[in-house]
Parts: sequence; structure tokens; C-alpha cells
Amino acid sequence: MSEFALIEKYFKAGASAMVPVANPNAKDHLSVALGIGDDCALLTTSQDELMAISTDMLVEGRHFLPGVNPQWLGHKALAVNLSDLAAMGAQPLAFTLALALPASDPGWLENFSRGLFQLAKQFNCHLIGGDTTAGPLTISITIMGSVGNQQVLRREGAKLGDDIWVSGCVGDARLALGSLRQEWSISDLALAKVLPRMHLPTPRIALGLGLRSLASAAIDISDGLLGDLRHLLRASHVGAVIDVSALPISASLAQQPETIRWQCAAAGGDDYELCFTASPEKREQIEALSQKLSLPLTRIGFVSESAEAAIDLLDSQGQAIAASVTVNLLRSFDHFA
Amino acid sequence: MSEFALIEKYFKAGASAMVPVANPNAKDHLSVALGIGDDCALLTTSQDELMAISTDMLVEGRHFLPGVNPQWLGHKALAVNLSDLAAMGAQPLAFTLALALPASDPGWLENFSRGLFQLAKQFNCHLIGGDTTAGPLTISITIMGSVGNQQVLRREGAKLGDDIWVSGCVGDARLALGSLRQEWSISDLALAKVLPRMHLPTPRIALGLGLRSLASAAIDISDGLLGDLRHLLRASHVGAVIDVSALPISASLAQQPETIRWQCAAAGGDDYELCFTASPEKREQIEALSQKLSLPLTRIGFVSESAEAAIDLLDSQGQAIAASVTVNLLRSFDHFA
Repeated sequence: MSEFALIEKYFKAGASAMVPVANPNAKDHLSVALGIGDDCALLTTSQDELMAISTDMLVEGRHFLPGVNPQWLGHKALAVNLSDLAAMGAQPLAFTLALALPASDPGWLENFSRGLFQLAKQFNCHLIGGDTTAGPLTISITIMGSVGNQQVLRREGAKLGDDIWVSGCVGDARLALGSLRQEWSISDLALAKVLPRMHLPTPRIALGLGLRSLASAAIDISDGLLGDLRHLLRASHVGAVIDVSALPISASLAQQPETIRWQCAAAGGDDYELCFTASPEKREQIEALSQKLSLPLTRIGFVSESAEAAIDLLDSQGQAIAASVTVNLLRSFDHFA
Repeated sequence: MSEFALIEKYFKAGASAMVPVANPNAKDHLSVALGIGDDCALLTTSQDELMAISTDMLVEGRHFLPGVNPQWLGHKALAVNLSDLAAMGAQPLAFTLALALPASDPGWLENFSRGLFQLAKQFNCHLIGGDTTAGPLTISITIMGSVGNQQVLRREGAKLGDDIWVSGCVGDARLALGSLRQEWSISDLALAKVLPRMHLPTPRIALGLGLRSLASAAIDISDGLLGDLRHLLRASHVGAVIDVSALPISASLAQQPETIRWQCAAAGGDDYELCFTASPEKREQIEALSQKLSLPLTRIGFVSESAEAAIDLLDSQGQAIAASVTVNLLRSFDHFA
């Protein structure tokens, strides 16, 4: 059973049996507005404000390589959670940290906490509690942010004909990982350039805030662009047409053979960019936001009609890419595969 | 370095450098009201309401025995977090679950989620999100509850001359653990009686709610009565005099030799009872609450003056217990010891 099927069967079902749909009478009191199924859950905290909440767990050897620089790890553990807030258009507020580590190693802890707090300060996000214990190296962060209830970005909301956008460039983290794993070989220079993209991802908080009034739907790219896009399409009950040659990639990735290029850009995880949809009427405002943030925002396709969240991939000539290729690119990262 | 020193040095210090003290101008917006250092952190959510938040992490072989019944484990993982809400007088609202497990085992998951949701339903506490991954069996839950900002129970607030109370009985979980670990031998009947206390603790939510207007300070007993009491005393800048013979223990524990009895009742962890202080004027109301909840509440001593959070232990004759014995009983459970 895959990770997604497992969550669906044992936890989402049990949770749905309990969680009430947003209760309009509870607007002045803490209540559940949204449960499992988006980048964050939402709690109603006051008349017009929501708290966005997300939890991630990183396990050594699964989400990061044994012996990784602890300062990078401290950064990344918080960055992946901040990225979930970004995808909802939320402003970071606070987080808790649960940490299991094999031994109480002062050098490791000093570096880990340095990486963690540097990023926390950058986004004014406060460590408010947690738990520390001996155990196999495991980090679980729960993050909380705030967003107006009329401004929140969701996976649902993409409309037929909307543009599909992606921020920054995609695939570098996967290119670095494949090189470290010796799936392929790249130059030392290329590796030096893409390694920070894998170890020190930049959460797109400012972009998420800027998209509050522009995007119709959004998701962050943690498990691969097409796989995550598909979650968005499913939630919105639409499909997509994507121009693979339009995917924004770095010069380092552009130098690689086509199969690696596609695999990294379309199906590589760990990029923590945002993928979002917006009405074509918003193009100018989105270009202006891109300028303001000095962050490339690239149109990679459009929303189409599909009951099955189908993604049609086109090559640079506008020709459909064979289904057999598409299937492989759509395969999202599965932690139990 | 002990668990407590480690948290103090690397995380509390870094967090304190950032977290502002409660900001009276931020009362209408989400803001941090209390960071690390109590059973829960507190966020201000509206004019008069706080959100209490707590995170715990359970690691196989450290917090629970390998092969433990997954239904019990699902119960306990949530119960220890609910207990933190109880200690703050908070009403449970929602939780997130981060779960690393070695394999996607449907039988295990079905039982784990059954234990989890049974308890969640009992307290109307909704699973709103989480993360599931392969890895060494580790469970991290972050729980959220609500409490009025004039009603919240804290570790600080104990006053000179206040009574010290404990709920239920203490030491059974430790008696069971010691038997399973063959530290001592108890009868099969005694073990059958105390095992549920170890595996299926009862979070004292109703007691926490009832104590909102009665207690001056409160803490839950997870690491041992005297060790946890000491955290409360430190936060309140007071000491305590405790009558060891007054500690409420079960008939099973009462049958054990004195050394085991004391060790389990005074220093055993995993009881998840509440220890709280209250003015002697509240005795009648507390007795009435005990009746209403059908839950024994026992006075075990009183708050004394001490800059070092000293605990003086008296025996049944009112005689001071030797310092050498006291030191051992005060040694709180340390996950890195």
C-alpha cells in the first residue's frame, strides 16, 4: 500500500468521520475550518482570521543523507514547513520541534540550532515548544501561520482556462541527489551549484503572500512538479496541458541529457517552489510581482477539462508526448516505495 | 548533558532571544503569548481566548516496548498530549500526527488508528493533518486546545501556604514497567491490574477544566511526581513540604516493599495524573469537584518558602526523610540518562 493510500484509508477516513465542515456559527471561537488534504490544515481563530498548520517529519536516510551537515539540516527541516505555509498564502508565526537524536552531541546541536534559528529569524517564526529524546535521528516540526479567511490559497479553485505557473526553477535538488547517489555523473562545478538547492531550499513565503489576491489555487512542490500539480488538479476537479519545454530549469540542468532533464524537472522532488494557477487576466500583475520579488515566475501550461485530473504533456513542437513517458513522469515520490 | 540542560542551552535560549513577551497591542491578532517552559505554549487568538499547543515524541524502545499492542500505542500517543492540555486547563480541539513506521503494515495501522480515534472521539479532538513516512517507529503528535486567557493554568502561580494536591493514584505505571523489565517481581494479578495504567493512561481533561477557577498552579506527571512538582516549584519560586505517607497509591502498589513503593509513587513516570496547588480556602470546592468527577484528589503537602525549589519529605511520623533518600526520589526521568 502506498503512502497516499495508507493515509487515505487509515487516517483521512477516521478524521473525516469526526471533522465538521466549516461551522459558520463558530466564527468567534477556535474551531476546525479545514482538516486533512491541503498543504495546511486551517483553524478559525477569529471573525476573519485563520491559523494555517502543517506537520512534516524528516527521517535520516530517507529524507536526508546520514552525516549531512547539521546546520543545513536545521535549515531544511524548518524550510519544508515554511513552504507549506507559503502554499496557503500564510504569514509564519510559530513552530514546535520534536527531535529524536542518537546522542546528546553538543557540536551537532549547536550547528543544527544555528541553521534552524537563522531561518526562523528571517521569517520571524518563533520556536514555542517541543520535545527532545534519544532515538534514531528524526525531526518533526509543526508550523503555524496566519491568513485572512478571504485570502487563503487552496489546492481547490483552479478554473478552466487558468494559466499554470511555477516559481524559480525546478529539478536542481533531484539533479544533486542523483549525482550523490551515483545515478548519473555531473561536473563538480554543476554539483557545487545545485547542492545548495537540495540542502538549503528557499521557502517562497513572500510569493505566497503576494499571490493571495492573484492565484486561484496553489501547492508547493515537495514530491515532484507533475505529481504535486496532480494533487491540485484533483482538488479542483480539472486537468492540465503542460508544455514540457517551458519548464524553468537552471543552466546546470539544461546541460544534462534530455531524459535526466525531464526526470529532474517534471518528477524530481525537494524543490519547494510554488506551482499555482491564475486567470490570464492576472498575467501583468503576476509579472510585476515577479519583478518585485526578483523571482522568475514562468507559465508552463493551462487548466483543461478533465474528470480524472489528466495531465497532457506537449513537447517543444506542441506534439503530445507518449503516454508511456508521461506515466513515469507523473509518478510522485512515495515514502514507502 | 541531560535532556533538560540540552533543551535549555540550544533551544530555549535561541527561542527566548526571539519570542516577545505577551504583546498587549496584539490582542486581536494571532501572536505568541507564551513560549517554551510550561506544559503547553500559548498563542493569543482573540481578545479573550488562547490556544494551548503541545508536542510530544514517542520512540520505540524508549517510550514504549517493541511489539506493544498498536491499539494501546495509538491511545497512549494521544493521551500524553491530552494530558498536557489538561495541565493548562485547556479544552481539546485538534491534533496533527507525524508517524514513521518501518513498513506499511495494514493490521498494525488499523489497530493503531482505532486506539487513536477512540480516544480522539471521547474528547472531540480532531485529527487535522500530519505526515507519514517509512522509518524507525516514531510517533509525534502536536495538540491544540483552547482556554480563556483569565482561566489558563500555569506552572507558576503557587503561593506560600497553598495546599499541594495530586489526582488519582501514582506509581502504578512504574510498578508495571519495573515488573516487565524484571527489576522486581509482582503477582500476575497485581500486574494485570497495573498494566492498563501504563498502557492506557487517562488524560485528566475534565479535572483541568474544573480546576480553572480553583488551582493556583498545575503540571501533569509524566516524568515522576517529585521531579515534575519541582518544575512547578521552580516556575513559582517556592518550595514544598511533602508527606510521603500521604501519596495516593493503589492496593497493588501498597502491597510492595517500602523501597519499591516510594520509588514508584514519588519518582515513577507515565502516570499522567495532575499535580496542582490551591489555596486552603478552596478545599471544599476541590472536594466537591472530586465527588463530581468520581476522581480521588489527595492533599500531599503544602507550599513552603525556598529560593531553590527545595522539597522536604516527611515520613508518616512527620520526621524528615534523609537527604540521601530524597535525592534519589527527586531524580526525574531523563531521556538521555
